[in-house]
Amino acid sequence: MFSKVAILGAGLLGGSLALALKRRKITEHVSLWARRQEIVDDIGRLDIAHFASTDIALSVQDAELVILATPIGIMPDLCRKMMPHLSDFAIITDVGSVKAPIVQSLTEVLQGKCRFVGSHPMAGGDQAGLSAIKEDLFNGAVCLMTPTGETDASALVQVRNFWAALNMTVKEMSPQEHDHLVARISHLPHLVAAALCVAATREGREALQLCGNGFRDSTRVAGGLPEMWQEILIQNRVEVMHTLKYMQETLADAADMLEKGDPIPLQDFLKLAASIRHSVASRGLTDE
Amino acid sequence: MFSKVAILGAGLLGGSLALALKRRKITEHVSLWARRQEIVDDIGRLDIAHFASTDIALSVQDAELVILATPIGIMPDLCRKMMPHLSDFAIITDVGSVKAPIVQSLTEVLQGKCRFVGSHPMAGGDQAGLSAIKEDLFNGAVCLMTPTGETDASALVQVRNFWAALNMTVKEMSPQEHDHLVARISHLPHLVAAALCVAATREGREALQLCGNGFRDSTRVAGGLPEMWQEILIQNRVEVMHTLKYMQETLADAADMLEKGDPIPLQDFLKLAASIRHSVASRGLTDE
Repeated sequence: MFSKVAILGAGLLGGSLALALKRRKITEHVSLWARRQEIVDDIGRLDIAHFASTDIALSVQDAELVILATPIGIMPDLCRKMMPHLSDFAIITDVGSVKAPIVQSLTEVLQGKCRFVGSHPMAGGDQAGLSAIKEDLFNGAVCLMTPTGETDASALVQVRNFWAALNMTVKEMSPQEHDHLVARISHLPHLVAAALCVAATREGREALQLCGNGFRDSTRVAGGLPEMWQEILIQNRVEVMHTLKYMQETLADAADMLEKGDPIPLQDFLKLAASIRHSVASRGLTDE
Repeated sequence: MFSKVAILGAGLLGGSLALALKRRKITEHVSLWARRQEIVDDIGRLDIAHFASTDIALSVQDAELVILATPIGIMPDLCRKMMPHLSDFAIITDVGSVKAPIVQSLTEVLQGKCRFVGSHPMAGGDQAGLSAIKEDLFNGAVCLMTPTGETDASALVQVRNFWAALNMTVKEMSPQEHDHLVARISHLPHLVAAALCVAATREGREALQLCGNGFRDSTRVAGGLPEMWQEILIQNRVEVMHTLKYMQETLADAADMLEKGDPIPLQDFLKLAASIRHSVASRGLTDE
């Protein structure tokens, strides 16, 4: 296992990761980089890392594993900045929600210097930032790893073992397959939840005071960071547009059933949906 | 407060209601009617009512409050069947998710015999039936009551106090206003969650094994009973179609933003959605 891990980015994922690594002693030394000094101060107060700094050179020094946990848009630049300060033995991974463009650009940037392998730990929440971090955020969740033909086999095994040590279920697939699947189970749901918030309040927001758990759950993900999600949706736009088209067709079919008022096709549609929902894997303790 | 309450229908709502009334001694006697003998046997084993039967006459005998907790489609027939056995002083209410057609038909059926007032306790869950009942299902949730010009003022106050005794926040509005608002915060989200299940798996269900909490929460309500939801959506189809049209327009706008690949309007859209989501009232302890 790695003795020194550097995490770049102290949001919900980066912060929760540092917390889990330090508390559970999965690694001897956790270094946590943040862009702003006030976040570095927060990290100190929360005591979730052995070292915290806005200085990228100091943060990655001697790290065996560097984890990019920033918004995906700044990852290539961050890699260029940290490159001169990386050890030759360093392995780089990331936690980005889109893989094909990230894996391609980071592999290119780091080429000849460091070994890179893409990761996507599928954990998160509706609250962002250090105030929302949880030690068990990754516990029991799925981590998708996206090696390519160029990926170093030993780096893949080491990063895989690292996520497994956090009690994650690791699955491997190509970056393209990742983006195809995640568009359907994460990116489309985000866009739909956002549209539901907007559509439900088009004539006013007074209904929001009456909401039951149904509306709250259906729209929870729409509370996520707009800047972060805009980047994700744009980076994976081809796959998202493809599955959004299916969503639009399905809603058009449903509108047609309601228009006709015939209960049988509507009930069949709801039955199909319920059977799909019932086959969703549960996550054990953290599941509702 | 009522000393004898009869509940017709022993699903999640009827069963949880009986359980709460009996455990918390809100009423001296709870009678629970179910259509099938095996459910009556379950009620006995669970000890959630003082009396349980498939006999409607015995179930409503001497009841001061009768609560219809069956699927909405059978409520008018059930009222006709129980009418000869009701006391003159009985007050009737229901827990249906659609109000205008129900309030109209039940008021007509019961006219000259009993006082009726419509209720919609906004509680539920993704599991149905007696095995999913919870004593605190109604605790802290909103109950919408829908009096009309014909509603008896004393019946309204008594039923209002009854729901308040279950620690519900009671709000009054017309049946039409109810159906307008609930189409937006409950019926549309249900249809959208169902469509999301269907659209996300249009090319196969393998992605379901990778789901994080995002997909699970976004689609939770789609696991509800298809027969029950078909009735609700059809009964409130005019309002549902109206808000579904907004949903379709909003998704078409989002598709257009993705197509153009311009991050600014997409980010503005996600910001608006997040601000709406953040203004949703939280439900305290039962909120996630």
